[in-house]
Amino acid sequence: MNYRRLGRSGLKVSELSLGSWVTYHNQVNEGAAQEMMAAAFDAGVNFFDNAEAYAGGKSEEVMGAALRALKWPRLNYVVSTKFFWGLDREGDAINRKDTLNRKYLTQAIDGSLKRFGLDFIDLVYCHRPDPHTPIEETVWAMSDMINRGKALYWGTSEWSAADIRAAWDIAECHHLHKPVMEQPQYHLFHRKRVEEEYARLYEDIGLGLTTWSPLASGLLTGKYRNGIPGDSRGAMKGMGFLEKSLTDDAKNAAVGKLETIAADLGCSVSQLAIAWVAKNPRVSTVITGASKLSQLQSNLGAAAVIPKLTPEVLARIDDATLALAV
Amino acid sequence: MNYRRLGRSGLKVSELSLGSWVTYHNQVNEGAAQEMMAAAFDAGVNFFDNAEAYAGGKSEEVMGAALRALKWPRLNYVVSTKFFWGLDREGDAINRKDTLNRKYLTQAIDGSLKRFGLDFIDLVYCHRPDPHTPIEETVWAMSDMINRGKALYWGTSEWSAADIRAAWDIAECHHLHKPVMEQPQYHLFHRKRVEEEYARLYEDIGLGLTTWSPLASGLLTGKYRNGIPGDSRGAMKGMGFLEKSLTDDAKNAAVGKLETIAADLGCSVSQLAIAWVAKNPRVSTVITGASKLSQLQSNLGAAAVIPKLTPEVLARIDDATLALAV
Amino acid sequence: MNYRRLGRSGLKVSELSLGSWVTYHNQVNEGAAQEMMAAAFDAGVNFFDNAEAYAGGKSEEVMGAALRALKWPRLNYVVSTKFFWGLDREGDAINRKDTLNRKYLTQAIDGSLKRFGLDFIDLVYCHRPDPHTPIEETVWAMSDMINRGKALYWGTSEWSAADIRAAWDIAECHHLHKPVMEQPQYHLFHRKRVEEEYARLYEDIGLGLTTWSPLASGLLTGKYRNGIPGDSRGAMKGMGFLEKSLTDDAKNAAVGKLETIAADLGCSVSQLAIAWVAKNPRVSTVITGASKLSQLQSNLGAAAVIPKLTPEVLARIDDATLALAV
Amino acid sequence: MNYRRLGRSGLKVSELSLGSWVTYHNQVNEGAAQEMMAAAFDAGVNFFDNAEAYAGGKSEEVMGAALRALKWPRLNYVVSTKFFWGLDREGDAINRKDTLNRKYLTQAIDGSLKRFGLDFIDLVYCHRPDPHTPIEETVWAMSDMINRGKALYWGTSEWSAADIRAAWDIAECHHLHKPVMEQPQYHLFHRKRVEEEYARLYEDIGLGLTTWSPLASGLLTGKYRNGIPGDSRGAMKGMGFLEKSLTDDAKNAAVGKLETIAADLGCSVSQLAIAWVAKNPRVSTVITGASKLSQLQSNLGAAAVIPKLTPEVLARIDDATLALAV
Repeated sequence: MNYRRLGRSGLKVSELSLGSWVTYHNQVNEGAAQEMMAAAFDAGVNFFDNAEAYAGGKSEEVMGAALRALKWPRLNYVVSTKFFWGLDREGDAINRKDTLNRKYLTQAIDGSLKRFGLDFIDLVYCHRPDPHTPIEETVWAMSDMINRGKALYWGTSEWSAADIRAAWDIAECHHLHKPVMEQPQYHLFHRKRVEEEYARLYEDIGLGLTTWSPLASGLLTGKYRNGIPGDSRGAMKGMGFLEKSLTDDAKNAAVGKLETIAADLGCSVSQLAIAWVAKNPRVSTVITGASKLSQLQSNLGAAAVIPKLTPEVLARIDDATLALAV
Repeated sequence: MNYRRLGRSGLKVSELSLGSWVTYHNQVNEGAAQEMMAAAFDAGVNFFDNAEAYAGGKSEEVMGAALRALKWPRLNYVVSTKFFWGLDREGDAINRKDTLNRKYLTQAIDGSLKRFGLDFIDLVYCHRPDPHTPIEETVWAMSDMINRGKALYWGTSEWSAADIRAAWDIAECHHLHKPVMEQPQYHLFHRKRVEEEYARLYEDIGLGLTTWSPLASGLLTGKYRNGIPGDSRGAMKGMGFLEKSLTDDAKNAAVGKLETIAADLGCSVSQLAIAWVAKNPRVSTVITGASKLSQLQSNLGAAAVIPKLTPEVLARIDDATLALAV
Repeated sequence: MNYRRLGRSGLKVSELSLGSWVTYHNQVNEGAAQEMMAAAFDAGVNFFDNAEAYAGGKSEEVMGAALRALKWPRLNYVVSTKFFWGLDREGDAINRKDTLNRKYLTQAIDGSLKRFGLDFIDLVYCHRPDPHTPIEETVWAMSDMINRGKALYWGTSEWSAADIRAAWDIAECHHLHKPVMEQPQYHLFHRKRVEEEYARLYEDIGLGLTTWSPLASGLLTGKYRNGIPGDSRGAMKGMGFLEKSLTDDAKNAAVGKLETIAADLGCSVSQLAIAWVAKNPRVSTVITGASKLSQLQSNLGAAAVIPKLTPEVLARIDDATLALAV
Repeated sequence: MNYRRLGRSGLKVSELSLGSWVTYHNQVNEGAAQEMMAAAFDAGVNFFDNAEAYAGGKSEEVMGAALRALKWPRLNYVVSTKFFWGLDREGDAINRKDTLNRKYLTQAIDGSLKRFGLDFIDLVYCHRPDPHTPIEETVWAMSDMINRGKALYWGTSEWSAADIRAAWDIAECHHLHKPVMEQPQYHLFHRKRVEEEYARLYEDIGLGLTTWSPLASGLLTGKYRNGIPGDSRGAMKGMGFLEKSLTDDAKNAAVGKLETIAADLGCSVSQLAIAWVAKNPRVSTVITGASKLSQLQSNLGAAAVIPKLTPEVLARIDDATLALAV
């Protein structure tokens, strides 16, 4: 496994990492989580992604229990969490959901630390932008988590380039801790934000990326080419919003072309898609997900595919997908 | 219940809120406080106002006991306190009353936290300006409460626009937490500070308002139209200073006209007066008081009156009261 | 008793206050200290001055024990300590004496808090300037005591105007807590630093003064007019350095003239001398010392003399002493 | 023993000090460490140098145990540690070795405090530069150790002048604690960094030096003039990298000339070499090492040689060594 700096920071993360979204607590119980984390760690993965909102806090509890069982030295791994949606998203949850105000953030980090059973979280994210809280208030609250020793680095997820830059400038001006990383969606069909909108931020502020959804919610595995299988994420409760995208004919046809390319490289289309994300040097780590050990091991196999992505191969991939990408 | 941002901050407060001034410990014991807080909370109220000086600290104790009994999640409610007068206002109480110096403020917040039985207070106010302490000393002390995790947002009460702006500028210059809100008196007979003096502060510094005395100490309930009833606040010990104002003939005549307008809208004059305050979009929340449950419920009925305050109705209200307002 | 602001700060101190230098532990045991502190407090004194070096830390212990016994509310009194000489001044006491470096100051405040048995000290002073430590290092260390909640206000003692201003400027520039007060020697024979050297600091940085030695080590009591009495401070072990000054003929002759003026005002020469210091509006408080209760009560009588110091009386005092003052 | 300020800081260190590199845990057990520290302390040494990486943390444990046994007052001594290499330097130790990122530094100081059994470390160093972490991230992390009370002063070791100045400037700009000292290699054959590269830093930022290897790993003792003795450091496991340097013919010939000079001064060549380092007024302290008591006492004898280094003697030393120095 190779390691990359998280943007311009000194923290190094494995180029492939393991996320708990969707899977933990829902598809993956504590024992399975521990088994997969152990396998990933043994393969060199050092970053484990999480969020308060994943499975309503259960994902943090499952990961925390696994970490206690695994007994890795604290320096050897990096864990994250994210704040915005809150734990409890029913009804009018004033100041408890869809917010980045100081009250919520101040209480949320304490909740995450407790669920994880950790003294600090390595990476903390603003999970979405909150247009109803001044960026300055959010910057202070995130920086305070670091000042109080509850977190080490902070960043954003799915923020606009303008908002990220504003946060950085406010922190620089007031001598606060600056945002270090952004967690954007990034895959073959979703490229413009990472490749165009953020283009100037990499050099200007040293932004790092921890990207999510390398397989486009499973579309890039090829398993939706013939409709939605019953045991797939696309068929899960609460995931109906993915249906249209997963069954898009043009995209599934493109996946067919990718399968040919993958076959030529001796890998799966999933591995090709993950390797393609990792090939972008602006990406610090590609967060992958897995609901079972075999899937994890297949994903990690993508590391070996990265060096095979020559300019010629990348051109073939672009031919197959670029026109469909946003 | 609708919610509004506290000025430009990301904190959301219910447009009607519940204060404890006068009533707690004096007219309202712990059980009644808890009953009314529960009713208000069920109706959507999320902000409960208090101050160190209310009933010499007893008001904080009563509210703290109610909160413990009610067991609401900490994210679901916002409580305040205020500092200036001290707990003990007899004789020469040097550095213990009528001050905003660092010694007093540093010790006062710890006293409030203990009386409330809370780890932090959401909103802390400078209850009045102190011309004998530099604003800079006060700004540091208030900001320190936030830095130390004892409070989340700070503001002022009955400060001049110039002093509020000076506090904001000092905090901005020294990278301290800036004041977010002001708690002014605001009702049909007391309008100029909110509408004129503070006019530029709303945009310039994002000032929020948590207004007090929407009923002008009861004058706008109409109950003083025929003198001071024996069981009213005007007849309470220590409230003699209100007598002249409550029995003002011209104002009571104006209240008579408001009663006609209220009748046309199908509400009480109290509800009309509260709704009028809430109609001002600069107001973040209208703090209401109640000594019994029926009064609380009547007050909360004002929320339904707000949308009925059309330009025509507002013009009728102005005709009745504007000439008498300061 | 009147109270004055400590310079431009919001803290109010009694115009006469009680110091422990020389007397505590040496001449005054714990019981007597408590008795005199109680009498002073009852007379309105709210500031009790101390220093780490007084009696090698014993003075802080004696005062701390008295405070515990007296059980005054913490807001009602102000205590100080001072750092520079260290507890242990024998031999080569590197980093333990004659220093204001960060190591010493950081450890010294913890020692004082422990000896006093207090959570914080109201006023902390740099007891002398240290030419071997950058002022910036000292400013950071003093400001840190306040940031960490171990002290409320900091100042200097016997620093030059230039050094005080430098400290203030560094603190302003780096957004640290600024020095608030200076503790200079000030009496009828020692005037120039307070009246000339510091002249611009009162307005420019709001400097307050807590002055020491109003009686010029006893010279202004008149008791040295006929040599050094056996039971006086001038005869104490370690006080030989005072001998020449106490037996100065010209000064004792001047004291004789002051006795006439005092007699005309119906007070003692000591009271006249203390009142003269307090007459200067730049003085926040005059620190007085006493080894027995009668002396304390006599000193406190000076408060009544202050208003008697008319321009004519002040001119007579200047005639008697100004030529001899430095 | 004389004491010098650590650069422009107010901290005073003995001109000769005692380091634990190589020796502790390896050649020196706990009892011997305590015996030598006691002897050094009795001779006036007040600075004891250490690092996390020395003997994989054991050196800190040995020194901590000795300090507990010796029971010196905490103000009387200064200890250091250094961070960069980590405790565990095997394999891919991502974020655990060869780094100055915030994650590592934040966890490393806590580990050192625990191994030492101390509440704070006086001096903390960045043991080497880390080109893969922004200097700003490192400056924040080091400054935070001081803000959190875990360290008193921070500095660097073997950093370039440009990097030291960059760190100082960043700290000044963001109002953080600035680096105070650098620990460079400095001896008769290794002079240019201290004498040329750092030349402007002494005045510009007040840099202090705590130099290491005054005897050039033993070369300047003269014991390698006839090859590597079996019981010397040059023969130790893991020290093979020194062999070429220790057996350099030209340098050993120069050592021969120094022996003549030393004989003329009535001292050993080791003492001459140590005294030569200390003669440079830019040096705050010369860190010496010893594996046995007699060696320590011999080293400390160098203090008496310093005043004997007249311009004439220094010229003779330069004649013998300058052409070979880098």
